[in-house]
Amino acid sequence: MSVTGPAGFRAAGVAAGIKAAGARDLALVVNDGPQQSAAGVFTTNKVKAAPVLWSRQVLQERKLHAVVLNSGCANACTGPEGFQDTHATAEKVAEVLGVGAIEVAVCSTGLIGERLPMDALLSGVDSAAKALAATEEAGLHAATAVLTTDTKPKQALRRHDAGWSIGGFAKGAGMLAPNLATMLSVLTTDAVISGDDLDAALRAATRLTFDRLDVDGGTSTNDTVLVLASGASGVQPSREEFTELLTNVCMDLVRQLQDDAEGVTKTIDITVRGAASEADAVAIGRTIAEDNLVKTAMFGSDPNWGRIAMALGRVDAEIDVDKLEIATNGVTLYAGGAKARDRSEADLSGRAIEIVVDLHLGDHTATILTTDLSHGYVEENSAYSS
Amino acid sequence: MSVTGPAGFRAAGVAAGIKAAGARDLALVVNDGPQQSAAGVFTTNKVKAAPVLWSRQVLQERKLHAVVLNSGCANACTGPEGFQDTHATAEKVAEVLGVGAIEVAVCSTGLIGERLPMDALLSGVDSAAKALAATEEAGLHAATAVLTTDTKPKQALRRHDAGWSIGGFAKGAGMLAPNLATMLSVLTTDAVISGDDLDAALRAATRLTFDRLDVDGGTSTNDTVLVLASGASGVQPSREEFTELLTNVCMDLVRQLQDDAEGVTKTIDITVRGAASEADAVAIGRTIAEDNLVKTAMFGSDPNWGRIAMALGRVDAEIDVDKLEIATNGVTLYAGGAKARDRSEADLSGRAIEIVVDLHLGDHTATILTTDLSHGYVEENSAYSS
Repeated sequence: MSVTGPAGFRAAGVAAGIKAAGARDLALVVNDGPQQSAAGVFTTNKVKAAPVLWSRQVLQERKLHAVVLNSGCANACTGPEGFQDTHATAEKVAEVLGVGAIEVAVCSTGLIGERLPMDALLSGVDSAAKALAATEEAGLHAATAVLTTDTKPKQALRRHDAGWSIGGFAKGAGMLAPNLATMLSVLTTDAVISGDDLDAALRAATRLTFDRLDVDGGTSTNDTVLVLASGASGVQPSREEFTELLTNVCMDLVRQLQDDAEGVTKTIDITVRGAASEADAVAIGRTIAEDNLVKTAMFGSDPNWGRIAMALGRVDAEIDVDKLEIATNGVTLYAGGAKARDRSEADLSGRAIEIVVDLHLGDHTATILTTDLSHGYVEENSAYSS
Repeated sequence: MSVTGPAGFRAAGVAAGIKAAGARDLALVVNDGPQQSAAGVFTTNKVKAAPVLWSRQVLQERKLHAVVLNSGCANACTGPEGFQDTHATAEKVAEVLGVGAIEVAVCSTGLIGERLPMDALLSGVDSAAKALAATEEAGLHAATAVLTTDTKPKQALRRHDAGWSIGGFAKGAGMLAPNLATMLSVLTTDAVISGDDLDAALRAATRLTFDRLDVDGGTSTNDTVLVLASGASGVQPSREEFTELLTNVCMDLVRQLQDDAEGVTKTIDITVRGAASEADAVAIGRTIAEDNLVKTAMFGSDPNWGRIAMALGRVDAEIDVDKLEIATNGVTLYAGGAKARDRSEADLSGRAIEIVVDLHLGDHTATILTTDLSHGYVEENSAYSS
């Protein structure tokens, strides 16, 4: 169960013919209320896809009746015509649902620079509207219809003891360094919550979850995370309770994205401790996460801490090489300005690798999640236009 | 001919036993004068190897009698003991040459975090001193002794009509994003030039050459470029003449580094035109150069300009997506906010690829040199501890 877990939501995922081969490529998530508050965060990339420009605009009202999503075409770098395609998609959804187009968000993912096949897409909206259901299967169909190079759908659901819940799905396997958002994710809740509180909770949750995933530094043109609240549980949680559960659901989805990233053979968690500021901790973690020499060493199960030291040394952050400590999988390899235990003592042969950098300069911490750089990543991205 | 091309220099490259397998691993370059002016630029990485700390210090005098270089061990992250090893190396060279240790620069390259085998290194200095010669062969031996994953030595020589010349060698194949320096390079000249003029010329030349090469974003802990002037030609060129020829020699070496980078199957020149500032042009070029999705697309000979648009959109620089143009190998693929000519028209099947981004916002330009991300790069860096 994911987006259809919370009460008040229906979903569908159909094959509209945008992708070849008859795969599901169009998803619809509808909020039947009684309330329709919503919030969204979007890519920081200056090159923003048409659906991002549209959805960011409609979200200013903090209200959504529905979200329509397609895979197979990002509708990015497509000019005014591309924006009109997005607008026409929202209009079509509004028409079949009997709502206003301004209450419909649009998300797209796939190849940049190509126009959407609008005939296929618009008739797909008709099929999706007919297939809408509040079932677990319908939620799975929606979560499946947004996938590109992902090998499996990513769903999460958390139920609060007080009788409300949060569900969601996400997609994304490459071009994955979300900044205020990931590739695409839709979250739903039946809690009673205002649009402003929803917005604050979403920003707090994504800052510590989607923003801490960095597979290849490639912040996409289409990154979007949306959250829709139906109020159907009749329960109004505190903002703190809501933010905590939302963060929990987001982290569940992020872990699934990390585990299914393009070419992944290792999941790598990089924790930077003792930083002078959280910004320093995040910057150091991201630079290590994006460093190809670190990533290839991890692919080779090689605790090559010298490459970690090189990577962190090129960050514009406060560092004292004599206080610095570097550990992999619990074995401290560098401390006091020189080699500590021998690299042969750190066993990185398993799938999960933990890198801990302790700067001993302050009390700020951040963990960045990444993956290794494998032959699979190179193969997938040299052979596949995405 | 390289460092021994200009008059007044002798060189040697011997097998000291730092590397396994009896390969040449210790180089010595000596300036016999009559003058000994010198200048150097060093890595911007905060984690600086012991030889960088030493050489930066001795260069404050703008005078060098000799440079000793070793491969097989970077002597980085080795604490006070590592610094003493560098100091002892300089003292040994000073002793055998009858000069002061403060006139001897030291460079090291290889694995980070390991101590130098000092017995082998010090007796290697004796062998190198005996082998010193002003011949082409001796210069080649020195250029060979500094190599790590490079497949061939990189040498360059330019002679000015007025009777003076500049020669040099360089090494570096991975961890290659020099910033004010490359991995290691030694340049020699028999021009008559002061240390201050040499310093100014070196900074001007490296800014437009070594600083514009970015293979994998990995600015090393040991990056060093040194230039030594003997004055043996008796000719004093203008600073402009000297800077121009020095830039020419540096670019020749940089092209050789690019062409022999780890796993290279494509050399990629990224020119950013029409930028609001040179800093913007460089930042955009570097971000595209470091983007794994762009690099893997190039490996696959795929003119996937959407990835170039994504990469440049995440740079903190002035960009207008409607004015932006992107071309690969002379074919404009994106212009006026949307797709221009079809990607199938751009043939990237050859070894040399040219990416041109025109921002149409100003008149600043920069070209960044990089390579593709291939299976060879992953193989080399997951199997080799460097």
